Amino acid sequence: MTTTALENPAQFVAENEFLQEVVRQIRAYDSYGFYRSWSDELVLSPFVVSKKKKREISTEGDIDPATKLRILCFYRGIASLIEKETGQLCQVIVDLNHEGFGWALVWSGRLLSVSRTLRDAHRFGFESLEKLAEEGEKLSKAGIELSQRFPEVARL
Amino acid sequence: MTTTALENPAQFVAENEFLQEVVRQIRAYDSYGFYRSWSDELVLSPFVVSKKKKREISTEGDIDPATKLRILCFYRGIASLIEKETGQLCQVIVDLNHEGFGWALVWSGRLLSVSRTLRDAHRFGFESLEKLAEEGEKLSKAGIELSQRFPEVARL
Repeated sequence: MTTTALENPAQFVAENEFLQEVVRQIRAYDSYGFYRSWSDELVLSPFVVSKKKKREISTEGDIDPATKLRILCFYRGIASLIEKETGQLCQVIVDLNHEGFGWALVWSGRLLSVSRTLRDAHRFGFESLEKLAEEGEKLSKAGIELSQRFPEVARL
Repeated sequence: MTTTALENPAQFVAENEFLQEVVRQIRAYDSYGFYRSWSDELVLSPFVVSKKKKREISTEGDIDPATKLRILCFYRGIASLIEKETGQLCQVIVDLNHEGFGWALVWSGRLLSVSRTLRDAHRFGFESLEKLAEEGEKLSKAGIELSQRFPEVARL
């Protein structure tokens, strides 16, 4: 990676395949064109939540629908990368109870390429755009490896 | 099977392993002891919905929480049978949107032993207790076979 998010966030987002997928997912939900004039890095900015800010977010009450959508877009971004690499259609479910606990699943056929328990979903976020990209890429990579290890299950 | 549900529903339910699991699941959710004095076949009776009655249930508006719980208990019953047979812990998710579309998933490790799309969930039900048992056993059997075919994936 030549550019870091600190030096030039716009270029960093533009060059990062995973972040581009996440941006695409969010824009797909933007039926009213609210984000149309926003730059990609502005669209991604709510994904960055500092530790201090996290502590300030209450985990009581229902999860903010915007946060829920961000979690979904994060895992859909991962699913897109897995689809691109393996050619297998991926399904995504984010299942959360109102306490912020639940599951995020990405699967093709009968293979769960990503399976994560979620907790404190109210506070979903990453320290930086780089961390967001890193985490997404790590999960995608593990999912792709699993699909390649058990192609028969993914094709069921 | 010696007894049919028509001849003697109580005995049929008592002798059927799958139906017993479903009853156990429902009773587990019965925190207020509402069903404590109910017989097993009475507890299962809302699972039986005739075709005529199904047509009368509107698919508009949100799904009745009781129906949602019945769907969950049905799949949890299947998960129990798979657990018993394979010794693998199973997770269950029923994810429905307010239009009654969604997924029912049962998995162990990275293997989806049951994966079904749901539609018209408002009208969830079976023609008879026998049909309910049959459908549950069919799904459990397929799930067990899959787990035995790919034990490595189920243990991941």
